[in-house]
Amino acid sequence: MDPKCIFCVIVSGAADASVVHEDEHLIAFCDLNPINRGHLLIAPKRHATNLAELPETTGALMFPLAQRLAARIRRSPIPADGINLMLADGAAAGQSVFHVHLHVIPRMIKDGFGVHGGGRAATRSDLDQVARLLITKP
Amino acid sequence: MDPKCIFCVIVSGAADASVVHEDEHLIAFCDLNPINRGHLLIAPKRHATNLAELPETTGALMFPLAQRLAARIRRSPIPADGINLMLADGAAAGQSVFHVHLHVIPRMIKDGFGVHGGGRAATRSDLDQVARLLITKP
Ligand SMILES: [Zn+2]
Ligand SMILES: [Zn+2]
Repeated sequence: MDPKCIFCVIVSGAADASVVHEDEHLIAFCDLNPINRGHLLIAPKRHATNLAELPETTGALMFPLAQRLAARIRRSPIPADGINLMLADGAAAGQSVFHVHLHVIPRMIKDGFGVHGGGRAATRSDLDQVARLLITKP
Repeated sequence: MDPKCIFCVIVSGAADASVVHEDEHLIAFCDLNPINRGHLLIAPKRHATNLAELPETTGALMFPLAQRLAARIRRSPIPADGINLMLADGAAAGQSVFHVHLHVIPRMIKDGFGVHGGGRAATRSDLDQVARLLITKP
């Protein structure tokens, strides 16, 4: 635990949080600045700055918990026509709290939230070149 | 497999894709309209429209694969100061291909990509009310 990390302090119980789930490895609580009502964060209890520091065994627990919380939001009275999962790994990706966390964001049609700077069509030749750079032979 | 689903057709091998990973349960390939070079999609081989249809056991494999591909992108010559993971569950969340998939997006500072319609501070009282709606007693 890092005493200067706000999420570690939340895990320790020394800072307020509106917690919706807690188990041996993970905690989930309400984002202080929700995009929409019901916006949750899933974080490992043990400090990990980013994806690289997060044990894969813990990562393997985060996605199923996101599935369960998404289902729980959809069944709740909180409005949610859809759900976004988002994670920012590194400041350049928008990470602002450096304890890795996955956002679970309820979405409504025309809720004003969105992404900009969208993609542009690539050629198959460039995509194949990218794939060659990223394939690891088994 | 759904023959009208483009990702199922890719899994079957009948449509072109620039594949970077394939195992018993998952496939990862280049997005046709990359936000940035190296933008990948991770999808289950077996058709699942959305998070609710995806078996949790498969979801448990997707996040660790995203961690490995993020690490692989960062070690590659492809520029990446950060990585975003994003998933859209439902049309209201921006889902356009209805075979569940997780985006792995290399990010650079000032690359023009971002989110808008950001959050606003909520009161603890409202967050606690939200948490009460979403907590499931163990
Ligand atoms: Zn921490
Ligand atoms: Zn499909």
